[in-house]
Amino acid sequence: MPVSNIDFNEYVKGYPNFPKPGILFRDIGPLLASAKGMYSAIEQFEVQLSGIKLDLVAGIESRGFLFSTLLAARLGIGSMMIRKPGKLPGQLVHQSYDLEYGSATLTIQKDAQVAGRSILLIDDLLATGGTMAAAKSLLQGCGAVVPVCAVVVELAALGGRTVIDAPVIALQVYDD
Amino acid sequence: MPVSNIDFNEYVKGYPNFPKPGILFRDIGPLLASAKGMYSAIEQFEVQLSGIKLDLVAGIESRGFLFSTLLAARLGIGSMMIRKPGKLPGQLVHQSYDLEYGSATLTIQKDAQVAGRSILLIDDLLATGGTMAAAKSLLQGCGAVVPVCAVVVELAALGGRTVIDAPVIALQVYDD
Repeated sequence: MPVSNIDFNEYVKGYPNFPKPGILFRDIGPLLASAKGMYSAIEQFEVQLSGIKLDLVAGIESRGFLFSTLLAARLGIGSMMIRKPGKLPGQLVHQSYDLEYGSATLTIQKDAQVAGRSILLIDDLLATGGTMAAAKSLLQGCGAVVPVCAVVVELAALGGRTVIDAPVIALQVYDD
Repeated sequence: MPVSNIDFNEYVKGYPNFPKPGILFRDIGPLLASAKGMYSAIEQFEVQLSGIKLDLVAGIESRGFLFSTLLAARLGIGSMMIRKPGKLPGQLVHQSYDLEYGSATLTIQKDAQVAGRSILLIDDLLATGGTMAAAKSLLQGCGAVVPVCAVVVELAALGGRTVIDAPVIALQVYDD
């Protein structure tokens, strides 16, 4: 397929009041359903990542996994999972972070051997940035470098970009 | 990269007694970490799927997502998510199934429009087959055809293949 600049807004569907009242959920289901849309998304990521040395792509559970392996394959590098507690076997490293109510924890495997490696963090969506920032801290705490992060959708009004100390590539930005 | 027949056992690590005593967990982390391993896995899937008409790849949450988009991109078709309750927005279709203790439910979006389409079901691992069989019933109940399923790892002693009324492609089979 040729290089194409598509309107990613056509591949993201808004669902008001999900998962709770007042939230407008931005769903990437239509993007997944479209071979053309997915091809264009991965191509856009690749173009915007050109010139950045990367050794691994780390996908954040669960929807980050939809993009981590696909982009890693395109870049010719490996990938890894960043998961919630209780999911990964073996010796783990943990990072907790605050949510609006309570807290959450992310884990990676010590076997992932991230020390000294340059890692792209990827997820489907950037909201407040809490999860992405915690994932970045987790990798950096293990000696990795995270030169850039990438998402399909950014909810700019929530300011996630401001809490992440690295450039964030976003294919579709919503201001509301 | 050239066509290659690699030993996928080298890319799967066993963790005894995870997630509970007596279970030998088969982890695909090393496969993800290897660009060569992932390339070979997707290539093997493609070779074994040749001649089968497919319209969509459905990945089962969460690790199925690591393969659904990557294989869909390779085949030039779209993908979709099969998820646990509470994760997908919009109108859903549900399918419950029995576990060793209790039950679980899978959901897809009605918007996925699966009726009349030929869908490959994919997950990282086939154990008892309960989840894969429920996912297949869910898609078929919506009018889809599931001509084939695919996994990276099959735990043959658990008999999962016998409860799925379709061929199952597996890259690495363990008998113990």
